[in-house]
Amino acid sequence: MIIVLKQNTKPEQLENLEAWIHSMGIETHVSIGKTHTIIGLVGDTSQVDMDLVRALDIVENVKRIQEPFKNANRKFHNEDLVVDIGGVKIGGGNFQIIAGPCSVESREQVCYIAECVKKSGAGLLRGGAFKPRTSPYAFQGLKGEGIELLEEAKAKTGLPIVSEIMNISHLPMFESVDVIQVGARNMQNFDLLRELGTIDKPILLKRGLANTIEEWLMSAEYIMAGGNENVILCERGIRTFETKTRNTLDLSAIPVLKKLTHLPVIVDPSHALGHSNMVKPMAMAATAAGADGLMIEVHNDPARALCDGAQSLTPEAFDDVAKAVFQIRPFACKYNED
Amino acid sequence: MIIVLKQNTKPEQLENLEAWIHSMGIETHVSIGKTHTIIGLVGDTSQVDMDLVRALDIVENVKRIQEPFKNANRKFHNEDLVVDIGGVKIGGGNFQIIAGPCSVESREQVCYIAECVKKSGAGLLRGGAFKPRTSPYAFQGLKGEGIELLEEAKAKTGLPIVSEIMNISHLPMFESVDVIQVGARNMQNFDLLRELGTIDKPILLKRGLANTIEEWLMSAEYIMAGGNENVILCERGIRTFETKTRNTLDLSAIPVLKKLTHLPVIVDPSHALGHSNMVKPMAMAATAAGADGLMIEVHNDPARALCDGAQSLTPEAFDDVAKAVFQIRPFACKYNED
Amino acid sequence: MIIVLKQNTKPEQLENLEAWIHSMGIETHVSIGKTHTIIGLVGDTSQVDMDLVRALDIVENVKRIQEPFKNANRKFHNEDLVVDIGGVKIGGGNFQIIAGPCSVESREQVCYIAECVKKSGAGLLRGGAFKPRTSPYAFQGLKGEGIELLEEAKAKTGLPIVSEIMNISHLPMFESVDVIQVGARNMQNFDLLRELGTIDKPILLKRGLANTIEEWLMSAEYIMAGGNENVILCERGIRTFETKTRNTLDLSAIPVLKKLTHLPVIVDPSHALGHSNMVKPMAMAATAAGADGLMIEVHNDPARALCDGAQSLTPEAFDDVAKAVFQIRPFACKYNED
Amino acid sequence: MIIVLKQNTKPEQLENLEAWIHSMGIETHVSIGKTHTIIGLVGDTSQVDMDLVRALDIVENVKRIQEPFKNANRKFHNEDLVVDIGGVKIGGGNFQIIAGPCSVESREQVCYIAECVKKSGAGLLRGGAFKPRTSPYAFQGLKGEGIELLEEAKAKTGLPIVSEIMNISHLPMFESVDVIQVGARNMQNFDLLRELGTIDKPILLKRGLANTIEEWLMSAEYIMAGGNENVILCERGIRTFETKTRNTLDLSAIPVLKKLTHLPVIVDPSHALGHSNMVKPMAMAATAAGADGLMIEVHNDPARALCDGAQSLTPEAFDDVAKAVFQIRPFACKYNED
Repeated sequence: MIIVLKQNTKPEQLENLEAWIHSMGIETHVSIGKTHTIIGLVGDTSQVDMDLVRALDIVENVKRIQEPFKNANRKFHNEDLVVDIGGVKIGGGNFQIIAGPCSVESREQVCYIAECVKKSGAGLLRGGAFKPRTSPYAFQGLKGEGIELLEEAKAKTGLPIVSEIMNISHLPMFESVDVIQVGARNMQNFDLLRELGTIDKPILLKRGLANTIEEWLMSAEYIMAGGNENVILCERGIRTFETKTRNTLDLSAIPVLKKLTHLPVIVDPSHALGHSNMVKPMAMAATAAGADGLMIEVHNDPARALCDGAQSLTPEAFDDVAKAVFQIRPFACKYNED
Repeated sequence: MIIVLKQNTKPEQLENLEAWIHSMGIETHVSIGKTHTIIGLVGDTSQVDMDLVRALDIVENVKRIQEPFKNANRKFHNEDLVVDIGGVKIGGGNFQIIAGPCSVESREQVCYIAECVKKSGAGLLRGGAFKPRTSPYAFQGLKGEGIELLEEAKAKTGLPIVSEIMNISHLPMFESVDVIQVGARNMQNFDLLRELGTIDKPILLKRGLANTIEEWLMSAEYIMAGGNENVILCERGIRTFETKTRNTLDLSAIPVLKKLTHLPVIVDPSHALGHSNMVKPMAMAATAAGADGLMIEVHNDPARALCDGAQSLTPEAFDDVAKAVFQIRPFACKYNED
Repeated sequence: MIIVLKQNTKPEQLENLEAWIHSMGIETHVSIGKTHTIIGLVGDTSQVDMDLVRALDIVENVKRIQEPFKNANRKFHNEDLVVDIGGVKIGGGNFQIIAGPCSVESREQVCYIAECVKKSGAGLLRGGAFKPRTSPYAFQGLKGEGIELLEEAKAKTGLPIVSEIMNISHLPMFESVDVIQVGARNMQNFDLLRELGTIDKPILLKRGLANTIEEWLMSAEYIMAGGNENVILCERGIRTFETKTRNTLDLSAIPVLKKLTHLPVIVDPSHALGHSNMVKPMAMAATAAGADGLMIEVHNDPARALCDGAQSLTPEAFDDVAKAVFQIRPFACKYNED
Repeated sequence: MIIVLKQNTKPEQLENLEAWIHSMGIETHVSIGKTHTIIGLVGDTSQVDMDLVRALDIVENVKRIQEPFKNANRKFHNEDLVVDIGGVKIGGGNFQIIAGPCSVESREQVCYIAECVKKSGAGLLRGGAFKPRTSPYAFQGLKGEGIELLEEAKAKTGLPIVSEIMNISHLPMFESVDVIQVGARNMQNFDLLRELGTIDKPILLKRGLANTIEEWLMSAEYIMAGGNENVILCERGIRTFETKTRNTLDLSAIPVLKKLTHLPVIVDPSHALGHSNMVKPMAMAATAAGADGLMIEVHNDPARALCDGAQSLTPEAFDDVAKAVFQIRPFACKYNED
């Protein structure tokens, strides 16, 4: 961390500031230039509150040099993390599609979709049992029963399952879930993250709607600081002023994350866009940009099918997306290596 | 809700759509115009998933007419809500300043500050015991001990206390807390909101960093749907591209909310801005715009004082802000009445 | 356009509103439902000010059904536009890379780069002669001399040239320029757009940093309304809260635009990101998502090369990007057809 | 400017970088610390392209210490600027309301409104003759005739006039205009700004919809660098994800600007909000926050009046806003002085 002081800082103010920094066990390295005095901080600065320092009257500017995350930092983990889910691997050159219904609705639905997506090449089955809904009056998911239906689909197809947790007290129900998802709205539910750091299952951490990449990595850090190193990051769109899409999918997060962290990065193009015919081009784009996987909604709801189209893909449309993605993938491997 | 269909919709597609709507117990009122067919939905449309409808191929557009919130809706509660906290009232013409330290640090600190802010006219004491921190390595608050120190300050000054909850399992520790705060990062922690709907204490609900006013009211609705009608809304800044301030305080949320809801609206200018000398003008502005109260950080930390200034106000600076605000307030009452 | 009136609208208010609409030569189609009265407007509503209508006290909501753009609307131009620049085609299945230096600096620089990018497969040469700079003290480009140097490079390589105009009075200097670029900051310089509508050269219109897709198409409409139908749209990143990239490249704009308009859509990944090693993955992603072309900065500045890297690509790095892109392109054609 | 180098920078790379900096006439001050090497730049760094430096492979970070604007910088102009418009003063303790119709429509309209707003205390008359419209099909203003009607209103009332310019070639028509307005969409039309720097009239510069405060000051710098030092800044709302208001009025820009610049800051609450009943609270808030003035739309259009309300205020409603604002103003003076 580097602190730049204002020109008119008095020597005793500098001394006081240094004393305060030393009290945290951090060394200082002062360089008095022609126009500015600069303090370099050497030591573990992850505990220093930058906003507090920046707010001091004598401080012109403060800048972190080391990223505030360690466990999630590629500098300390040069090798890509490979998350192994019962033999299904994500990261480090392993690419997976996670597919399934937004909400688990019935045994027939989830088993039928599971079989379809497996045939098309999906490596994992997703399905929502607990649904975070903006409205308290909307359907909140089948809950425990939904998890049981996912288990049945897993038993039939062998696909590991991914499902979202909203409350740490539900953890016992997630025994059979292979990858636990933390949704965008819980990305900074720090108590939930901390608890998930103590268990032994991979966590799929979605980016919050308005969170920076650094905050996202700090949330991964919460999980990893507790000992659980298997975190998969999932970009799902951020909030902007544009109204033609529900959210703006930030695909540049992929190369940015690849530089900063060794964790696998996947992309969910279904939620951000709002219409199924945009899923294919964005799934292809995410793959080309070097994503380690995709998460895609697939449904077979006849009520919606009646009306000819919806935001989820039908199994047939998903098959087409999967084909496209698997053909793009080798070029992503070949050209995104440096 | 109004659904506008595309020009080339076939009669059987219209029938299918109507059948699906009727299956939810909602009546339809179809109007076939020269260029478009419009379906008006009559009934409880709060359960209808607009995104799903919008994604249908035959749908050109869909528009909610009734707001999706009811308990929080001024249309059904024309009178302003007055939240009564042991005699200290907020809303419906009652204005309060909630002041205190960001984090509770020691008995001396919190009692001293409580006495100061009371003298300056604050009606409630705030203090953080559980701190939501972006970094797992940062100080996370004194927790239970912090709550106890707040109780002591309350005993000494008589000021009711406001403190933030992060985890529903901590609720027993909040017995003595008069107003429970839900922080910006938990605004859509729906399980937490639902639980707080079942208790008998006012809830201070902060706006999420990137949440719309409608989503904020839907979160209030979660609490109110459970039976707890005492919700206070607190604007604290939203995330934009501007970097000179930490967040952008959205004061226009005050008149917007006053039209939409009967709930009290307060403003926290301390977090959004990042420097104490901006707190005063923005506190004055929020008051002039018709806020029902303010939440302001006050500290007396000698380490920071050494360096001549910080983002929190000193008790003296707070006294000056309170004076300004109390002089502006009558004009807000006089002119913001319609 | 559909106007939804509030429940308590009086008959005479409805009549007044209808009279005002009729005075603009627009027919009304009123449908009085159980809870709401809806007015459908039939005729040329592009002149109706939606904000004004929305602000009326009796209006609950107003919604455009027809897009406010016509010349740029795919509904009236089902066939993709192919822009033909002296035989070099963009759109309708034709893909081009436009490459070259950010600023034209010298004869050697621009000619050397032109030859390199031609060899790598670029179809057009870009180069800035007039540079829009945030600071009045920064280098503003070689201006007329820069255009002359581009002409020389064109003479040597045969590559058509693309350069940015900032002021309509400079038009005579752009005689030899094949495609005139309008920069992001001038996207709503309506007088400039209107003038460019009267000339006979393709216009490359960049999206403004904070403009919606609809506003962007309205700016294309300004040019097309004057008779110049050859507009190429260029996505270059929008402004968000994220700070790890300079801007957020909105690749979902590609499928959205493909649905709304017949104009070609290209992507400039160089400006948004800020580091050359992100250009390759995002160029590949844009191609996979179905872009009709790319605009990429290439430099050979030895001063920067000294320091081992910069935001522009070297000719060698560009060659690698071009190879990747040309291998991805066939899959974009094959799978993005519907 | 401070450049922080990466740990593994080689001595010859450092030398090369220093040589390049020296070639711009800037001195370097190198400080080699335990973990990082820091280069301090001494001299006129306003010409250094930060993005270029940041993109160098050996650079960890780069930070400007001096603001890149000089003429607009309070550090060099400690005294508030007072803009004197024929005796009507703005800034340095002088507060003005600029009021009038959005578009000039007729002699009767503009003269009647001018007389009304003068009576209510407005110091200047605004009126649009050239209207920047998103759609090429919308009314573009009365142009030259509009300016003439404003002149007549000025002759009758003595109020100086403010009107927007969109094209430098229209300057001769603005002879009689007292303050020339640059609209939000032209805030970075650098050629227009440069030309306005050479004339001898105050310029009212609106903030762009998605521009940072620093960029806004750089645009003021463009004007001032040409010799025209009379620039008035006008906040009018920025673009965010919120949809209940057209834009988000950023009132915290007032205290931020007061620290950074000596230029007067006014606020236009009419455009951002979209409904007249929000203008009053936000006008009061802006005044309380220390604005040097307000710009408010007033209309007397009978067609709109028929329908009982619109986004502009009627003369009567304006009178009420002015009363409120003039009563708040003394407290803003008293408390916003430090």
